[in-house]
Amino acid sequence: MGQEVLSQIQTKKNPSIELPVRSLSNIYFDPVHRLIRIGDKKSQRQYLNLSHTRKFMQTLLVASECKKIIEQNVTTSIRDLYYALKHTIEGTKENTFDDQSESDPVLEDLESALNLLREELHLKADRKGYMAGPVVIEDTGDRIDCSKMGSSGWAIPSDVEPGMIKFVENKAGFVLVIEKDAVWQRLNEDKFWRTHNCLIITGKGQPARGCRRLINRLHNELKLPVYVIADADPWGYYIYSVIKQGSINLSFLSDRLGTPNARFIGLTVRDVADYAISSNVTIKLNKGDHKRIKEMMNYVWFKPKEWQRELKLMLREGYKLELEALSSKGIRFISEKYLPDKIKRQDFLP
Amino acid sequence: MGQEVLSQIQTKKNPSIELPVRSLSNIYFDPVHRLIRIGDKKSQRQYLNLSHTRKFMQTLLVASECKKIIEQNVTTSIRDLYYALKHTIEGTKENTFDDQSESDPVLEDLESALNLLREELHLKADRKGYMAGPVVIEDTGDRIDCSKMGSSGWAIPSDVEPGMIKFVENKAGFVLVIEKDAVWQRLNEDKFWRTHNCLIITGKGQPARGCRRLINRLHNELKLPVYVIADADPWGYYIYSVIKQGSINLSFLSDRLGTPNARFIGLTVRDVADYAISSNVTIKLNKGDHKRIKEMMNYVWFKPKEWQRELKLMLREGYKLELEALSSKGIRFISEKYLPDKIKRQDFLP
Repeated sequence: MGQEVLSQIQTKKNPSIELPVRSLSNIYFDPVHRLIRIGDKKSQRQYLNLSHTRKFMQTLLVASECKKIIEQNVTTSIRDLYYALKHTIEGTKENTFDDQSESDPVLEDLESALNLLREELHLKADRKGYMAGPVVIEDTGDRIDCSKMGSSGWAIPSDVEPGMIKFVENKAGFVLVIEKDAVWQRLNEDKFWRTHNCLIITGKGQPARGCRRLINRLHNELKLPVYVIADADPWGYYIYSVIKQGSINLSFLSDRLGTPNARFIGLTVRDVADYAISSNVTIKLNKGDHKRIKEMMNYVWFKPKEWQRELKLMLREGYKLELEALSSKGIRFISEKYLPDKIKRQDFLP
Repeated sequence: MGQEVLSQIQTKKNPSIELPVRSLSNIYFDPVHRLIRIGDKKSQRQYLNLSHTRKFMQTLLVASECKKIIEQNVTTSIRDLYYALKHTIEGTKENTFDDQSESDPVLEDLESALNLLREELHLKADRKGYMAGPVVIEDTGDRIDCSKMGSSGWAIPSDVEPGMIKFVENKAGFVLVIEKDAVWQRLNEDKFWRTHNCLIITGKGQPARGCRRLINRLHNELKLPVYVIADADPWGYYIYSVIKQGSINLSFLSDRLGTPNARFIGLTVRDVADYAISSNVTIKLNKGDHKRIKEMMNYVWFKPKEWQRELKLMLREGYKLELEALSSKGIRFISEKYLPDKIKRQDFLP
C-alpha cells in the first residue's frame, strides 16, 4: 500500500488508496458458505480531494504506525495507537486525530483493504471470555493445560492467531459456548467438561473477536462440533447468529470469525413446556423486543423453519427467559439434566 | 440467625433480625486503621411491622438458600440466587422477589449482619481482572504458576478466600496494580514483572471484589508493598482510593478489601511537566470533573498535602490525562522509563 502511494507520488499522480465499501449496500449473505460477506464494490480515498484528504492522511498514519510496531515486534492497543499518533500538525492548529472514534474506523478500513485481522497488524482489541477443558495450548512459549486452571479457566486473549496460540494436545469431543459467565462457572465447578469430555467457553455476553476466532479455529482445525447456549431473548439469539455467520460490521472477517456449523442448544421458549419451567421466571416481552423479533424473522439466517417457529412462539407467548431461569429447577439442573438431555437427543436449532 | 428467629417464634415474640445501619450516617473514616468503616448503629427488621414484613421474608429466604448451598457444597451467582428464590407465594399473587434489585441489597444486609463475605456464603460476584508474575497459587487442587500464563495472565476469580486460593510459592518483591488492561498487556508483553521482580495486576477499571481482596491478601500475607497506577482523572483517583481504604457501599468489608498501605505511582498532572508530555494528549476537564475534584478535596482520605496539591494543580491546569498518553513518548516509555524511574525514586503520592 505504501509503495503504491509512493509510486503514485513519483509519477505525479493523485495519491489514492482503494478500499472495500463497508456500508450495508455492499453486504450480503453467502448461502453457500452460510456467512455474512462483503461484496466487490470498492471506493477510492484520494489525497487531492478535500473531502478525503484528512482521512487519507489518517489512513497512512495508522498504516505506518502498524508497520513500525510490526518491525519492532511489539503489540499495542487501539487506544494506544490513537494516542501514539495524535499530534498537532506542524505549522497548523490541526490535530491528526481529535478522537479515537476517528482512528478506529480507519483501522477497520485497513483490515478490510489488506484482508488482515488487526491482531496480524499487532493491535489488540478488548479481551474477555474464558475456556476450560481437556486441551493443552501453547502461548508465547508457555504450555497451558486448560483442564488444570482451577476455578478461573484460561483467559482468552485478544490475539489467538496460530502464530500466537497453538493447540498442542486435545482430548475434547465438542465445544460448548455459553453466553453467561455465571453459567460457565456453574459448569466448571461441576466439571461438566470432564464428565462430557468437551471444552466450555464463555464470551461473557457478546464474545469479543478473540473468542469468536478461537471458536472458529477449534471447529476448523480440531474438527470439533460447536454448540451454543444463550438466553431465550432477541439478544441471546443475536449473539448466536454472530458466532455462527459473523456480523455486518465485521463482514470482511466472517470467514475467520464465523462458525457456520454451530448449533443452538437453547434456551428456547419451547423449553418452558418441555422442562416444566415455572412461569414466574419468564420475563414479559417489551415493545423493543417485539420489534426486534419481527426484524430478526426477516433476516435470511433466521429463515429456517425451526427458527421461524421459535420466534413466532416467542411473540405468541409474549415472554423471554434467561439462562438463570433454569436455576428455579435446582442449581445443578442445567449441568445434570438440561444440557445432557439436549445433547443426547441432539435437540438443536440450526 | 435462624435459631434466634425460631426461638422468638416459639416464645411468641415478634420475630426480628438485627442489622447494622448501612446508610451514610453510620459510615466514618477510621484514622488509625485508615479505612472507611461502618459504625455501631443497628436497626431491627421485624416480621410484625407492615413496612418490614416483605424484607423480613426476603432476608430469611436468602439466608436459608445460602445455608442450603453451603450444605450442598456448591456455589452460585447472585443472579441465580434471585432466580432460585423467585416464586409466587401460594394462595396469593405476591412474588417473593420482583427484581434482582430486591435480592442484592438483602444479601449485603446479610453480609454485614453476619460479618461474612458473600464468597463465604458460597455466592459469586462478577469477576474480572488478571495477574502475572513469579507467584504460584493453588486453586481447588490445581497448581497455577502465574509466570507461565502466556499473554493472558491468570484470571482472578470471584472467590479468592484462603479456602479457595492458596499462595504456594512467591518470589515477587512488590505488587503493581494497573487500572487498564491495555497497559497491563503492554507490561506483560515486556515481561516487566520479570525484570522488576513483581506481580502485575489489572482490575480492568474499578477492580471487582475478588481483585481487591487478592491485593489485600498479597499485602497482608506475603507482606508485599502495593503500588497503583491509574489515569490522572477523578475516576482514576477514586479507583485508587477504593483499593486503599475501601468504599462507602462496602464499608463493612473494608478490612478485607482495603489496603491502606497502597501507594499511588501516577499518573499525576505534575508528570506532564516532569516527563515533558505533549499537551496534545491532555484532555480538558469538563464541568462534572471540576465538581468531582472539589468534592474529593473534602474527603478525609484526600486531605494529605500531596493530594491537595495534585488536585489543586489539576483544577488550575484544567486538564486530565489517561495512561495511554504516555504512548505519545513511545510504546515502551511506560515500562522502560516512567515506571522504573518512579519506583526507583519512590516518587509516590500517599
